[in-house]
Amino acid sequence: MRKTAFLLYCCLPLAALAQQSEASLVPYVKPIIGTQKMGHTFPGATVPFGSVQLSPDTDTIPYEMNGHYNGDVYKYCAGYQYDDKTIVGFSHTHFSGTGHSDLGDFLIMPTTGPLQMNPGTADNPASGFRSAYSHTTEVAEADYYKVKLDDNDITAELTATTRVGFHQYTFPKANDAHIILDLMSGIYNYPDKNVWTVVRVVNDTLVTGYRQTNGWGRNRTVYFAMTFSRPFKTYGCKNFSKREVYHGFWGKFDQNNNFPDMAGTQLRTHFDFATQAGDKIKIKFAISPVSQDGALLNLRTETPGWDFDQVKANGQAQWEKELRKITITSKSREEKENFYTAMYHAFINPTVYMDVDGQYKGLDQQVHQAQGFTNYTTFSLWDTHRALHPFFNLIQPKRNADMVQSMLAHYDQSVLHMLPVWAHYANDNWCMSGYHSVSVIADAVIKGNAPFDANRALEACIATSTHRSYDGIGDYMDHGYIAADHNGVSVSTTLEYAYDDWCIAQMAKKLGRNDVYETYIKRSQNYKNVYDASIGYMRPRLADGTFRQDFDLLKTDGQGFIEGNTWNFSLYVPHDPATLIAMMGGPKKFVPHLDSLFTMHLPDKFFEETEDITRDGIIGNYVHGNEPSHHVAYLYNWAGYPWKTQERIRMILKKMYAPRPDGLGGNDDCGQMSAWYIFSSLGFYPVAPGNDQYSLGSPAVDGATLQLENGKTFTVEVKNPGDKNVYVQKVWLNGKPLDRLYITHEEIMQGGSITFFMSSKH
Amino acid sequence: MRKTAFLLYCCLPLAALAQQSEASLVPYVKPIIGTQKMGHTFPGATVPFGSVQLSPDTDTIPYEMNGHYNGDVYKYCAGYQYDDKTIVGFSHTHFSGTGHSDLGDFLIMPTTGPLQMNPGTADNPASGFRSAYSHTTEVAEADYYKVKLDDNDITAELTATTRVGFHQYTFPKANDAHIILDLMSGIYNYPDKNVWTVVRVVNDTLVTGYRQTNGWGRNRTVYFAMTFSRPFKTYGCKNFSKREVYHGFWGKFDQNNNFPDMAGTQLRTHFDFATQAGDKIKIKFAISPVSQDGALLNLRTETPGWDFDQVKANGQAQWEKELRKITITSKSREEKENFYTAMYHAFINPTVYMDVDGQYKGLDQQVHQAQGFTNYTTFSLWDTHRALHPFFNLIQPKRNADMVQSMLAHYDQSVLHMLPVWAHYANDNWCMSGYHSVSVIADAVIKGNAPFDANRALEACIATSTHRSYDGIGDYMDHGYIAADHNGVSVSTTLEYAYDDWCIAQMAKKLGRNDVYETYIKRSQNYKNVYDASIGYMRPRLADGTFRQDFDLLKTDGQGFIEGNTWNFSLYVPHDPATLIAMMGGPKKFVPHLDSLFTMHLPDKFFEETEDITRDGIIGNYVHGNEPSHHVAYLYNWAGYPWKTQERIRMILKKMYAPRPDGLGGNDDCGQMSAWYIFSSLGFYPVAPGNDQYSLGSPAVDGATLQLENGKTFTVEVKNPGDKNVYVQKVWLNGKPLDRLYITHEEIMQGGSITFFMSSKH
Repeated sequence: MRKTAFLLYCCLPLAALAQQSEASLVPYVKPIIGTQKMGHTFPGATVPFGSVQLSPDTDTIPYEMNGHYNGDVYKYCAGYQYDDKTIVGFSHTHFSGTGHSDLGDFLIMPTTGPLQMNPGTADNPASGFRSAYSHTTEVAEADYYKVKLDDNDITAELTATTRVGFHQYTFPKANDAHIILDLMSGIYNYPDKNVWTVVRVVNDTLVTGYRQTNGWGRNRTVYFAMTFSRPFKTYGCKNFSKREVYHGFWGKFDQNNNFPDMAGTQLRTHFDFATQAGDKIKIKFAISPVSQDGALLNLRTETPGWDFDQVKANGQAQWEKELRKITITSKSREEKENFYTAMYHAFINPTVYMDVDGQYKGLDQQVHQAQGFTNYTTFSLWDTHRALHPFFNLIQPKRNADMVQSMLAHYDQSVLHMLPVWAHYANDNWCMSGYHSVSVIADAVIKGNAPFDANRALEACIATSTHRSYDGIGDYMDHGYIAADHNGVSVSTTLEYAYDDWCIAQMAKKLGRNDVYETYIKRSQNYKNVYDASIGYMRPRLADGTFRQDFDLLKTDGQGFIEGNTWNFSLYVPHDPATLIAMMGGPKKFVPHLDSLFTMHLPDKFFEETEDITRDGIIGNYVHGNEPSHHVAYLYNWAGYPWKTQERIRMILKKMYAPRPDGLGGNDDCGQMSAWYIFSSLGFYPVAPGNDQYSLGSPAVDGATLQLENGKTFTVEVKNPGDKNVYVQKVWLNGKPLDRLYITHEEIMQGGSITFFMSSKH
Repeated sequence: MRKTAFLLYCCLPLAALAQQSEASLVPYVKPIIGTQKMGHTFPGATVPFGSVQLSPDTDTIPYEMNGHYNGDVYKYCAGYQYDDKTIVGFSHTHFSGTGHSDLGDFLIMPTTGPLQMNPGTADNPASGFRSAYSHTTEVAEADYYKVKLDDNDITAELTATTRVGFHQYTFPKANDAHIILDLMSGIYNYPDKNVWTVVRVVNDTLVTGYRQTNGWGRNRTVYFAMTFSRPFKTYGCKNFSKREVYHGFWGKFDQNNNFPDMAGTQLRTHFDFATQAGDKIKIKFAISPVSQDGALLNLRTETPGWDFDQVKANGQAQWEKELRKITITSKSREEKENFYTAMYHAFINPTVYMDVDGQYKGLDQQVHQAQGFTNYTTFSLWDTHRALHPFFNLIQPKRNADMVQSMLAHYDQSVLHMLPVWAHYANDNWCMSGYHSVSVIADAVIKGNAPFDANRALEACIATSTHRSYDGIGDYMDHGYIAADHNGVSVSTTLEYAYDDWCIAQMAKKLGRNDVYETYIKRSQNYKNVYDASIGYMRPRLADGTFRQDFDLLKTDGQGFIEGNTWNFSLYVPHDPATLIAMMGGPKKFVPHLDSLFTMHLPDKFFEETEDITRDGIIGNYVHGNEPSHHVAYLYNWAGYPWKTQERIRMILKKMYAPRPDGLGGNDDCGQMSAWYIFSSLGFYPVAPGNDQYSLGSPAVDGATLQLENGKTFTVEVKNPGDKNVYVQKVWLNGKPLDRLYITHEEIMQGGSITFFMSSKH
C-alpha cells in the first residue's frame, strides 16, 4: 500500500511539474512526509502557524493504558502513523514532529448505521466508530486532507482557517447517519487526563463547550464552538466516567438523550441525521484559549459562510504566499518536494494562541489582551532555538518578534519569574534542558529584530538563568558545573547553560550592559569544567571536583547526557568552536574524532535504548535524528577542513530527507529538522544563534531567491551544480570574492547575492 | 457545656438589656441559635447577604467516605455542630439552614509546632491540625466570631465584608507557627469532588488561585486572593491525590517546598512564621466567581487596610441598619433574641454573586456583567418562595427585585430555557420539586415590585412550566396530574405545579395577558385531579386514571409525596383554600381534620425514616420543621375558626423557636423558618405568595414598627399583649375597624397602623 502511495507522489510527468512549479508551489508540499516511523508529523489540514491543526488520528493505544508512557505513546505524538489501517476520527489540535504526546482535542467521526459510542479496535474497526481506510483514496495537501472511510462509505474532507476546522462529509443514503463528537479521546490519553468537559447544545445547529486536561500541559483548557450546515434531528451523550459525578438531579431529566447541558469527565456525544446519497454534512469547529464566546467570535469572524472550496482556496493561498518567500531552482522534483515541504513543516509551529480580538489565556490562567503583538504558544525551544528561530529572524522576522513578545508575556505571568522552557497552551511542560529562550531572544536582538524593550528582555534572561532552584542552576552557579551526583544529565545541561550564558553575554554587550556581559561571558566558559582532558571527552563530574569513574563513551542513559552520548555532546560548544578544537588537541586530534563520528560502526540496535534516537537518524555515531548534533558537520570549517563540512552536509541532506512518508530521519521537532534542511540546502547555517554569522556549507539547490520582509531580495547562485559537485571551489558575495567561511545576517538583509562555484573535487 | 453556653446568652441583668436594646439591636442576634441538632445554621461571620460566610467547621466525617450520603453528611450542612468538641478549621463559604451539604471552600487553620498536614480525628485532635475548643471561650455575634484553639493556645477571630473574610490569629511564642490553607477540605467532601485546584504564590504576602468542584453544584469554581499581614518565611504543599497527575517536569523543581505554582486535585498548603507571644497574624481572604484578578480587586476594594476592629465595626453597622427595618417592643429578652436572630437568619441568603465591578459567572459558565442589578445566587426556592421572598418584597423590595433579575439572567443563560429551581453558584442543583421561581416573580409583579420587563419574565415562567422533559411536566400537561406510575413524588409535585400555575395566572392577569391567564388558571385547578373523594385525601393516581390501591395516610416515603405525608399535603392548596375546604366536606369535616393534625399522637420515632423531618419539628402530625405545612395553621381562617389559627400560631411560635443552640425545630432553610417566625410574631402571614393578601394570625410581640423602603412606616399595635392573651378580639386598620381576616400589601406600603386587641378568651 505504501508503494501505491509512493506512486501518487512521484509519477507525474516531469514537464507538467516544471510548468506547475512556476504556477504554484503548493503542489510540492507533501504533508505525508514524515508520517511514517519517527517523523511524527501529521497529514491533516492547517494554515501557517494555525491554532487549529485538523488531522486524522489512527492511534491504536487502548484508552485503559492509564497513562503508562510506552513506545506506542511515543509513536503517536502526532496522532497518525502511516502504517495504520484504520482512522478513529479527526481531531483539531496536533503537535508537529514532537517527541512527546498531547492534544488531539475534540475528535469528530461521521458514521452510519446503529449508533456505536466506542471507537472499537484497530483489528476490528467495525466493532466501533473507527473505520478502515486506504492510502489509495487519501489526499494530503497544504490545508486540505481527504480520505474515504471505507466502513461506512463516507468521504471525509478537511480544511482550516487559523482558528476554525472546516469538515465536509459526503454521506451515502442513511436513515441513521451520525456525527460523533468525542471529548473523551485525546492523544496520549488515559482515564484521569480529562479534568472536566462541558458540551452545551445552544440550538439545533450550534454547540459550545470546553475540554480541560491534566496532561503534558498540567492545566490546559480548550474552548470550542461547533456549527452544523444543517439541523440535527436528535442528539445525546454517554458519560464513561468511573468517578462519582453528582447525580442528585438526574431523575428530573433523561440526561443521555437530547439533554442540552452535558458535563462530566468522560463524555462522548452524538448528533443524528438522515441523509440521501451524496448529501454533504459540513461542520465548522472553532477553538479558543479563552471562552466559548471567544470560540464563537472566531468562528463567525473567520468562516462566515459554508463554501468549503473557498476556505480551502484561501488556506492554500496563504501557503503559497509563505512558500514564495524562498523560491529555488532545481532539476529534481524530489528536491523541490523536500524543500517546500520543509518550508511547510517549518511554518506549522509555534501556533497562534489568541482569539481574533487579541484575548488569550496566560500562564497565570487569567485572560489577557495581546497589546500590539500576536500571541503564540507551542515553543519546543530545546529544538527550535537552533535553526528554526534563526530561520524566522531571516524570513519571518515579524512573526519571530511576536514570538519573543509571547515569551516575555509568559515571563510576566510566571510566578517563578522564568522565561518559557516548553510553552504549551498557558502552561510550561518544562520538557528538556537549558533555558534556550535566551538564545531566541539574543538572536533577535543581535540581528536587529527587536521591536520590544530589549533591556526588559535582558532582565528576564538574567532572572531565568539565576533561578537557583531550577534544574541544577544553583549548583551550576556555585561550582561552574552541575554535579553529577546531583543531576542525571549534569554534563549536557552544563554545556547547554554555558551556550545560553554566552547568548546573554552577546545581548548584554549589544545593550551596553558590560557588567552583565562580564558575568555571563565568564559563565559561558563553564563548558571547560566538564571536559576531562585525560580522556579528551566531556564527562560527568562530581561535587568534589573529581570526574565520575564509571563512564561509557558510547552510551547515553545514565552517562550524564540527554539524548546524546559524549561522542556527540563533546562537540556541543557552538559558541566557541575554536577554543573547543584547541582544548581537544587541535585539528590533528579533532578532525579524526569528527571523521570517526560519521564513519564508526555501531551495532544495529545500539541506540534503541535512547528515546528520540532511531536507526534511520544515524550516520555512524552521528545522530542527525536528534538536535544536539545539528551544528556538528559545520565544525570542520573551524578546523581548516571546509571541504569535509561540504561533503558531510550534502551526504546528510541526501541520507536524512526524502519525499516519502518515511522521509524524515527523526522527529521533525516543530520544524527544527526542516529548518536545518532549508539552511543547509541553501549553503549556509547558523551554528551559534546569538551571533550574526552563518557558516558556509554546500548548496544542494541549483539556485534560490529569498524575498525578505524589508523588500530586498537575496539570491543564491550556484555555478556547476549537481549531486556529484559537492565541493565549493570559491564563493563570491555580490560579485566579489569572499575570503571567509561565513556570511553575516546584515549582508543578507541588505540584499544581493552569494555565488557558489561548485566542483566534484576539493 | 451547653449549660455554660446557655448562661452566656441568658443571664445578663434585665435592666442592662432594656437599655442595650435601645442603643443597639445587634446584641440580640445570636448566630449560635440553630447550630445544634437540625437547625443547620452556622455561628461564623457574615455581613447581610455576604458572598463570604466565614465560619468554623467541626465536621467529623472521614474524608474517605467517598461521597456516600449519610446522616452525618446531613448533620454537617453548615459545617458546624454545637455538640462537637473540635474545630478542623475556618472555611469561607457556607449554606445557612439547608438540608443538603456543599461549600466549605478554602479551609484555614493556624497551628504551632511540628507541621501536620492531616486534620487528625475528632477523638484525638492532637493527631492533626484539628484543635479542641470550648464554648466557654466562644463568642458568636453578627459578623464576628471568636474562639480559643486549645491545642495550640491560639485565639482565632473572624469578621467579613461582602467578599472578603478577615482572620485575626493571636499566637503564643512559637518558632514554628503555621497557617494551613487546605484546598482538599470541603463540606460533604469526598476524593473525587475536587475537580482541580490551583495555588499561586505571587509574593511573600500574596497568594491567589481557585478551587473547582463537582458536587451538589455540578461545575462550581471559586477563585481567591489571600494576603497576610506579614511575610511568611517559607511555604509548601502536599498533594494527596491518588489520580495520576503529570509529573514529567517535577524533577526540575522540588514542588513541595517553596514552589509557587502549585496545582492538583488534593492540595493542602502551609505558610510558616515565627511568632512572639501575643503576635497577631491577620489574613484577608477574598473570593470571586470570575477570576483571581476579580478576587484581588474585591480584596483591595473592600479591605484596603489591616484594622480588624474597624472591619468588624463596619459589618455590625450594616447589620444594625438591616435589623432596624423592624423594631419590636417586648418585655421578653428571649422574644427579642428570637426575633432579631430570625431577622439575621433571614438576611444571610441568597448571597451576592458578583465582583465589585459587577462581573459574575453565569449558568453558561461564561463571564457576564450585571447591568443595573446585583447578581445573587443560593436560591433554595422550594423553601424560600413561601415566606422569605414575600418578606423581602415587604422589607427588602430593592434586593428582591435584584434577586428576580438574577433569576431572569439565569434563564437567559440556560440552554434548557428554564428559570432556576435551586440556583447554586452558576449551577442549578435542581433540588426539590416545583418551579417556584414563578411564585417569587409573580409575587413581585403582583405587589408592584417589578423594575424589570415583566412580560419577558412571564415568557420565562411559561417556558419553564411547559418544559415537558422536566420532572413530569409532560405528564402533568397531558393528564392534568403526574401519573404515580411514572414519578415517585407525583402527588406533591402535582400540587406544587398547580399552585405555581396559579401564580403564573395572577401575573398574566395583571399584565393583561388573558390568553395566558385562561390556560394557567385552568392548570391551577389540577390539585383536584389527585384528590380521592372516597377517602378525603390527596392520593397517588395512575396513568389509567385510577387511584393507587396500596397507600398509607401517615407514611411519606413511597406514598407519592416529598417530605410530608398526605395528612399534611392534602392541605397544600394555598391558592384556593375555600374550594379545598368545600372539596374536603366543608368546615364540619375540615376543621376536625386540622385539629387532629395538631393533636394526634404518633409513635416517637415515626418520622425518622423521612429526611428533613425531626421530632423537634413536630406537633402531633403537623410538621413545622419542614415547609409544606407552613401555611396550614392559617387555614382555620377560611373555615370560620380564626381563633384556632390564633391559638395554633402562638403555640408554634413558643414550641418551635427558642434562643438556644437547639432553638430551631428544623432546618432554617436559608431563612424560610425565620421568615415564618417574623411574619407570624407580627400577626400576619402570606398564605399564597402571588396574591397581595396577608392572612391575620396572633401577634406575639408587644408592638412593632416597620420602616419601609418607600420612606413610610407601618406600625403593629398590640393592646393587652401577653403570653396568655393569644386571641384577637378585634382589629383596627389605621384606627378603623377591620371586618376581614387579612390586610393587603398595598395597605402596608401606604404606611399606617394595625391594632390588635388581645384577650385570653375567644
